[in-house]
Amino acid sequence: MTDSGLEELSERLRRFAQERDWEQFHSPKNLSMALIAECAELLEHFQWLTEAQSHALPADKLAEVELEMADIQIYLLRLAERLGVDLLGAVERKIALNEQKYPADRVRGSAKKYTEYD
Amino acid sequence: MTDSGLEELSERLRRFAQERDWEQFHSPKNLSMALIAECAELLEHFQWLTEAQSHALPADKLAEVELEMADIQIYLLRLAERLGVDLLGAVERKIALNEQKYPADRVRGSAKKYTEYD
Amino acid sequence: MTDSGLEELSERLRRFAQERDWEQFHSPKNLSMALIAECAELLEHFQWLTEAQSHALPADKLAEVELEMADIQIYLLRLAERLGVDLLGAVERKIALNEQKYPADRVRGSAKKYTEYD
Amino acid sequence: MTDSGLEELSERLRRFAQERDWEQFHSPKNLSMALIAECAELLEHFQWLTEAQSHALPADKLAEVELEMADIQIYLLRLAERLGVDLLGAVERKIALNEQKYPADRVRGSAKKYTEYD
Repeated sequence: MTDSGLEELSERLRRFAQERDWEQFHSPKNLSMALIAECAELLEHFQWLTEAQSHALPADKLAEVELEMADIQIYLLRLAERLGVDLLGAVERKIALNEQKYPADRVRGSAKKYTEYD
Repeated sequence: MTDSGLEELSERLRRFAQERDWEQFHSPKNLSMALIAECAELLEHFQWLTEAQSHALPADKLAEVELEMADIQIYLLRLAERLGVDLLGAVERKIALNEQKYPADRVRGSAKKYTEYD
Repeated sequence: MTDSGLEELSERLRRFAQERDWEQFHSPKNLSMALIAECAELLEHFQWLTEAQSHALPADKLAEVELEMADIQIYLLRLAERLGVDLLGAVERKIALNEQKYPADRVRGSAKKYTEYD
Repeated sequence: MTDSGLEELSERLRRFAQERDWEQFHSPKNLSMALIAECAELLEHFQWLTEAQSHALPADKLAEVELEMADIQIYLLRLAERLGVDLLGAVERKIALNEQKYPADRVRGSAKKYTEYD
């Protein structure tokens, strides 16, 4: 990970787990479960809202949403550290792949193309 | 977001969506769905593995896992940008909350405490 | 499970796994992962649709959605069988709890109440 | 749905929603979100357990797990009703497809084949 902010966070999270003897629970399998559980807690904030409402959360809801997003980032960094993955490097590679796969002039404004986007 | 690497990525992702006229699909509600769908694709790599196996992925599997993790980071950045959330700031706040909630000397080595950790 | 149709299905699924020596993979932990992965495959069909579009799927999409729903039912039955859970009995109990918790005359038409419904 | 127990449950759930004027929230899109959120609540019970521990839940945990499984069944029935899907018919079709795709004598005892099973 070439990003100093994320690297430092990742290191703090590693120490946090080690000081509590929690690394034994942090297998990649278990972390993938924790990650999806946090995503579900985020999604629950939106499930009965319209898309328009989801753009305009009240301040107290937004504060809760921020902490759910933090949990997702935390577990993603933990997983990257456990697997030895360079997370931002992977993001760079994925963006490059997406740029090849979805050239702007071919897919612009096409909901259909987007629906098939993955 | 005070982190220059993430900020720049976030800006690239915004341009990527705008150039394709895809921002119309990127409501926070929809992005929370895309995020959990990517987490599930990650989790599928681990669901039939033992925890020990999940620590030792073959190189081709690891390469796939990296790209799934990239997708999660990408949608998380997109959501942060759409909601105006300072993602790394939220992570800092959440780590501070966890440090208060789980003092190392009280919870160390306790699976029980950890099980109740959220 | 007092329902003969579901009981018979559950028994067929158990035999299916046994004949393939796949019960070794079907720990409750792993089945909970398989279940959420199937839910994500279902959700992916809806993530870029509006709510109105989600009510009016084209026939080919609906056929795919049906099979995703079948996968969810299948893993839910497998999990019930592995844990010795009477699934329909649990549903009866949960409906009774919901009827107490959300009396119709108190919550009718209230989005707010509903938003807090879980 | 040819199963009288499930049919009756589905009808009760429809009335429950109608009496509360909650059908407005029950678009297939939203129900797919509610469904995955319930699956995550189930999965959270297992995320820090070993597979062996997940087979031997204490009674109080099992009671909670049963109610999470009920929630999943409830939302699955609601979604089937909203989309006009014959859920058990779809399960029958899916089992038949799986029997063709994974002949017992070809895949028996093969973790590799199973890992690729979806």
